Amino acid sequence: MSQIKRVVIVGGTHGNELTGIYLVKKFERSPDLIQRSSFETLTLIANPKAYAIGRRYTDTDLNRCFLPRDLENPHLSSYEAQRAKVIYQTFGFAGSQQADFVIDLHSSTANMGLSIILGNENLLNIQLAAYLASINPKVRVLYSTTKNQERSHLDSICQFGCTLEVGAVAQGVLDAALFEETEAIIHAILDYLADHNQAKAPLINDTLTAYHNLGTIDYPRNELGEIQAMIHPRLQFRDYQPLHPGEPIFLTFDGQEIPYEGDSIVYPVFINEAAYYEKGIAMCITEKRELEIKIGLKSQESMVNRNDQ
Amino acid sequence: MSQIKRVVIVGGTHGNELTGIYLVKKFERSPDLIQRSSFETLTLIANPKAYAIGRRYTDTDLNRCFLPRDLENPHLSSYEAQRAKVIYQTFGFAGSQQADFVIDLHSSTANMGLSIILGNENLLNIQLAAYLASINPKVRVLYSTTKNQERSHLDSICQFGCTLEVGAVAQGVLDAALFEETEAIIHAILDYLADHNQAKAPLINDTLTAYHNLGTIDYPRNELGEIQAMIHPRLQFRDYQPLHPGEPIFLTFDGQEIPYEGDSIVYPVFINEAAYYEKGIAMCITEKRELEIKIGLKSQESMVNRNDQ
Repeated sequence: MSQIKRVVIVGGTHGNELTGIYLVKKFERSPDLIQRSSFETLTLIANPKAYAIGRRYTDTDLNRCFLPRDLENPHLSSYEAQRAKVIYQTFGFAGSQQADFVIDLHSSTANMGLSIILGNENLLNIQLAAYLASINPKVRVLYSTTKNQERSHLDSICQFGCTLEVGAVAQGVLDAALFEETEAIIHAILDYLADHNQAKAPLINDTLTAYHNLGTIDYPRNELGEIQAMIHPRLQFRDYQPLHPGEPIFLTFDGQEIPYEGDSIVYPVFINEAAYYEKGIAMCITEKRELEIKIGLKSQESMVNRNDQ
Repeated sequence: MSQIKRVVIVGGTHGNELTGIYLVKKFERSPDLIQRSSFETLTLIANPKAYAIGRRYTDTDLNRCFLPRDLENPHLSSYEAQRAKVIYQTFGFAGSQQADFVIDLHSSTANMGLSIILGNENLLNIQLAAYLASINPKVRVLYSTTKNQERSHLDSICQFGCTLEVGAVAQGVLDAALFEETEAIIHAILDYLADHNQAKAPLINDTLTAYHNLGTIDYPRNELGEIQAMIHPRLQFRDYQPLHPGEPIFLTFDGQEIPYEGDSIVYPVFINEAAYYEKGIAMCITEKRELEIKIGLKSQESMVNRNDQ
């Protein structure tokens, strides 16, 4: 597989997610921590203006600004649209400092644990995710790939990379335990990539549990768009746990339960994420799949058989 | 003691604390819920502009705008300074709808449980707090009184009343369990006041555990004001638990522990409150006191002997 020559670690794509911002600040004070002999590691605070005012964004969500057609559209003039172009022109394909691997650091008010979100099914990404899951049981692997649809997320500027989504932690808050766990994941990724460059990365010849995005569920709303119910207490913080048809997902302000009306077991994530109220998302629902990863020993290339339940 | 003729329930003093805002919305849809025969109950969204933009405030913290000298100062023109004047002129002493009792609904990213914050030591307030603590073990009573200092909080517009501070919950998030627990406290307060008006309020002839504000501790900061450490994982979410001299309170980004340097046991609250980073407050420290409440049976007036440990 391809050699990794440059890695970029991004914090502050959302200005009120402090874990990534303070990790990047730490790495900028102590760059030795993230250097490995076979590649260069750079850092970036993606949305410094949003960080300065303690908000997710100033004009629009930066992490939805990376669609190719938007990056090429000269008429988009919001601060975030311009930042996306600068970031892409720097670290993206054919950028002035083109990166091969991006780690985009996020946090969530949902109980996301240590989530590795993959935007594509490149083998290096899958092998890396399987490795991380093998060394830390808190790691969850979430696919946000969508068939035939381009992605608008920052991590799509590179062929390889992932978004780290850690939680639960409130916006504007540093949680020391999550800070240290996130840092440990970053070091594990860098070490893995260094081993990969020397063709000695630990290859996980096993099955990988991955959660595949199926869609979203919004809050019940009235004609004015006001929400009419809350996440049910029995669902709160139960990200990645099975939700069965008929189980309650919402509780109205008058105490009425609203059940999940799907016809199969799903695994909700991003349950009660503060930033998603305005997006019309109460939770994302996923299905759980076991990926069987087979290693061709000679070539060190992998085959992935998807066992779509 | 005085009769209560008008109660005002306030939500949205901070625009991103949704519990109180959605409770007030509920009461405005169903005003019967909060009516009692011997007094009138009104509701207020205190900072609608901040709620509309999903922020704590627009210009400045409304809950620090109620100092008498600021309410009388015609030169203060921020949105919140003007709102404070309108609120005071409506519900404050000699206001057009002068209230006798205010319930100001707040939430915190700290693990405040169900905190009753008292701004003064009026007997009705103390008896009510003792009653609430007696019916719900999650209730904590916190005194934010400061000797010889006027208070700037909204709940100071009335002689009687309190701030309800519930948590932990992220800003911009509704937690259904906390919503229902907060509503139960409000109903208990209204029922208590109705009984009080008929001189049959349950009087708690016992000791009341109360936490008295001693001051605040800021994060370690560099010369630019940037924080240099996080709340220590062992202190996170341990509001109202004893903190001993020498126990760690901060963890630097490089993993160094910073101990509490006081010389006596204290009880921190508001630990890692998101809104307090900008105020220079990592936590408030309190001391725990037992108040002995003695009831004079004939007059139904109480005497409070403070047993300041």
